[in-house]
Amino acid sequence: MEREHFSKLYDAALNEIREKLLVMGGKVEVMITNAMKAIVERDSDLAERTISFDHEINHLEVEIDEKCLQVLATRQPAGRDLRFLTLALKIVTDLERIGDQCAAIARRAIELNQEPQLKPYIDLPRMAHWTGVMVKESLDAFVRGDDELALKVCLDDQFVDDLNEQIQRELLTFMMEDPETISRAIKINYISKCLERIADHATNVAEMVIFMVKGKDIRHTID
Amino acid sequence: MEREHFSKLYDAALNEIREKLLVMGGKVEVMITNAMKAIVERDSDLAERTISFDHEINHLEVEIDEKCLQVLATRQPAGRDLRFLTLALKIVTDLERIGDQCAAIARRAIELNQEPQLKPYIDLPRMAHWTGVMVKESLDAFVRGDDELALKVCLDDQFVDDLNEQIQRELLTFMMEDPETISRAIKINYISKCLERIADHATNVAEMVIFMVKGKDIRHTID
Repeated sequence: MEREHFSKLYDAALNEIREKLLVMGGKVEVMITNAMKAIVERDSDLAERTISFDHEINHLEVEIDEKCLQVLATRQPAGRDLRFLTLALKIVTDLERIGDQCAAIARRAIELNQEPQLKPYIDLPRMAHWTGVMVKESLDAFVRGDDELALKVCLDDQFVDDLNEQIQRELLTFMMEDPETISRAIKINYISKCLERIADHATNVAEMVIFMVKGKDIRHTID
Repeated sequence: MEREHFSKLYDAALNEIREKLLVMGGKVEVMITNAMKAIVERDSDLAERTISFDHEINHLEVEIDEKCLQVLATRQPAGRDLRFLTLALKIVTDLERIGDQCAAIARRAIELNQEPQLKPYIDLPRMAHWTGVMVKESLDAFVRGDDELALKVCLDDQFVDDLNEQIQRELLTFMMEDPETISRAIKINYISKCLERIADHATNVAEMVIFMVKGKDIRHTID
């Protein structure tokens, strides 16, 4: 009876971590969407709010870390649970850094909004959209232990990389033709790279999920 | 007697992880140095070797991860040891990503070496030097549990950030004056940002060390 009670508490603790990670992921997705909206709609207020929102992400990181440590210390998990917990620890770090990237995008948005718009944004919002999908799916894959979905995320990364290359090439043409555009083009280029980094974080998460599910490491075999 | 034997095995396992992390850190430092040398001495062979060397880093990541999991599963560590192990898991991820950044720098070096040199490199090697020092000191701080050294690393990050800003400003001037330089300037800019990211990874490690030593989280209080 006591063992049953213990096991229920244990499951509850793992579920809490699972749910908090999803909450953190949801908040990070909102940050990606808002950072991009701040650029496309030239909304510097929204950019400011996105920057301050990063504190919530940082707070969740600390909270989930502590919860994982607590379970590791008191419940002595093994096997699949142990792997889940150690990966949760790694994944919060990725999510926190995605938050940092969103704040960095928002800071550039504020700078860009002070100058005339260089060009209509088409590829950048597409890239942001796909990046957000990758983040969401990598976390879904994690909580469900779904290695097929995780593999999809790894493969989608190429699409975001291609968009980034395309944006960089286009910006290069702008700069070559009119040096007046250089300063703004560099900022847009920076934003594109931030999105690419976010996609990389999602890919890292997805690779770790495959590791968790398969029990062996496929990291460094795809690349 | 048996307990003593167990405890010796346990200490040996923790020491092995500690040593392997230092080995990994040493290899990563060599990668930073060589990637920069490949640029300054226009040595594309060295750049190629730096790119392939990344496999060794990836291999060590997998190895240390498995060792940590094994100790967590079989020795049920608590307190400080538990914190050490969970942070080791996070730190290998940072080291692995530093390796990725070095490979990215080396790839850009090969591209740059195919064109005439834009300018003598002065700030970039300085930045690489300090970045390497930060990586080394963050790991030393980790294995020694030295929070003062870790704090120094966090503060040094500003210096690398300043160098990055300076390089970016200088490159902007080049590009404005002569659009012919844009393509090369963007590559150098990219390298500078890779170094800045490496310094960020070292800072992340240092922040986690302070967390480990103080037992409470100072992440997100410095920034």
